[in-house]
Amino acid sequence: MKDILILTKDHKAYRALIAAELPEVNIFTEPMDECEIVLGAPSMIAKELSNLPNLKWVQSTWAGVEPLLDPSLRHDYILTNARGVFGGLMSEFVFGYLLAHERKIFELTQAQQRKEWKHFLTGTLRGKTIGLLGVGSIGAEVARTAKFFNMTIRGYTRSSEDCEFVDEYFHVGELLKFANGLDYLVSILPNTKETRKIVDAELLSALPPHCVFINIGRGSAVDESALVEALESDKLAGAVLDVFEQEPLPQEHPFWTTKNLQMTFHTSAPSFPEDIAKVFVENYRLHVEGKPLKYQVDFERGY
Amino acid sequence: MKDILILTKDHKAYRALIAAELPEVNIFTEPMDECEIVLGAPSMIAKELSNLPNLKWVQSTWAGVEPLLDPSLRHDYILTNARGVFGGLMSEFVFGYLLAHERKIFELTQAQQRKEWKHFLTGTLRGKTIGLLGVGSIGAEVARTAKFFNMTIRGYTRSSEDCEFVDEYFHVGELLKFANGLDYLVSILPNTKETRKIVDAELLSALPPHCVFINIGRGSAVDESALVEALESDKLAGAVLDVFEQEPLPQEHPFWTTKNLQMTFHTSAPSFPEDIAKVFVENYRLHVEGKPLKYQVDFERGY
Repeated sequence: MKDILILTKDHKAYRALIAAELPEVNIFTEPMDECEIVLGAPSMIAKELSNLPNLKWVQSTWAGVEPLLDPSLRHDYILTNARGVFGGLMSEFVFGYLLAHERKIFELTQAQQRKEWKHFLTGTLRGKTIGLLGVGSIGAEVARTAKFFNMTIRGYTRSSEDCEFVDEYFHVGELLKFANGLDYLVSILPNTKETRKIVDAELLSALPPHCVFINIGRGSAVDESALVEALESDKLAGAVLDVFEQEPLPQEHPFWTTKNLQMTFHTSAPSFPEDIAKVFVENYRLHVEGKPLKYQVDFERGY
Repeated sequence: MKDILILTKDHKAYRALIAAELPEVNIFTEPMDECEIVLGAPSMIAKELSNLPNLKWVQSTWAGVEPLLDPSLRHDYILTNARGVFGGLMSEFVFGYLLAHERKIFELTQAQQRKEWKHFLTGTLRGKTIGLLGVGSIGAEVARTAKFFNMTIRGYTRSSEDCEFVDEYFHVGELLKFANGLDYLVSILPNTKETRKIVDAELLSALPPHCVFINIGRGSAVDESALVEALESDKLAGAVLDVFEQEPLPQEHPFWTTKNLQMTFHTSAPSFPEDIAKVFVENYRLHVEGKPLKYQVDFERGY
């Protein structure tokens, strides 16, 4: 009989979903010494690590796991995240904004408010070029969707080149070549020392002025002042930011009112318990059988 | 040597595109007696029909061809439309609005304007059900895109059942069964006597209150008063209308300010000359070889 600790605001939903699939387990919502398995939000788990002497495995309900990467915390357990389930959701987010841009959805709404019948010339995604900063499981799903809409796809990665939907790969040292001519730039980068402020003034100035930048990775990948400058001076057509250096965004931050900037308050990948519980159950069964778990996080690499 | 008359505002673009592909033809922009072939906008062609005694074939640059269906006009020529090229564009339009709805794009923009960091619970297209009124070449492309986003697809048609992406077909007499439980209803119906006000109070009341209706076909398919009533009384969550009974929409029409109604001024399928010229060149070559043309319109049926 296994004990499982659930540490998330949605613990009731998770309890029901997991009990239905794994009737043999005991589910707790308060730490106990004997507990080896934890499912939950990294921010809540980080606070309880010292109360879990027998911890063997943590399944994060998030894709990002920053709170657990803190070097002052123990890293003597297996950490798995939920990146496998966010690809489709984040892809819907990205293409919602790409299509809104091409089809001038906001301009059309404003014309309606003015009661102005107006024949806007709208665009199409077909034939446009999208650049992905980071091509992991989420980037691969964005690439697959871009290919469905007949776009050209560039991928910027450290090393991997295994996504069949990416037309051309770029690596360290080729960032400006990667940026040249992009219609859309999407960052899906995690927060690591290699990705810090990779979207800087130099990269932004290599993008065409009609390009739109979307950040669904981590805010640390962006030089926020350089982005404000690029948008305010029309060197970039727009930005959609789901993530920020500091969240919630401080009230005095220029982003709130920066020209052509849209904010989405870290909502690009809602965690649906139905999805995450499936990942947990799958990994639980692997764990019981002593097999390697899926979606393991490398504490050193940070993702 | 063939003479081709081009009657559209974009005649310069068409002339260049066609001359590049068919150097053997003479291109005119004013009617001449000997002219047998016309490429252009149905509204402009309708006015010149009496000046084209030798007319054999008209290639419309639009998907809809209403101005040429008028019973007082001659119908003694082959009429082909451009429906084959609009599927992708109209599908981008539909999914732009579906994703905007699921991801609460407008609500997020309003929260930003209030400088309010807010964790919206957003939705997903996956698992939702879309109903298509009309499953021709445009409907088939909408269905293909819906399947890409893992939706369930219902099709309502007169007879055809040949789209592999439709999960279930419904026919005359089954309209309320078709409507029951839909998350999205999309009309792609042409203007015919069978489709007139098919979206009426009875159909609207059969939809769940969270359903969103999108009309990219023709305005005549909708009972406009019934739609206003459904939206204002929250019997329907939203409507996106690209087409109307009367266009441009009169200034006093209630649609301008109806609750949860968005208008797009007949822009869902922009005619890109590059696309239409390709259809024309393909059909021209079939015409020269005496073969049947693609995308022929049945004057009686109206599409």
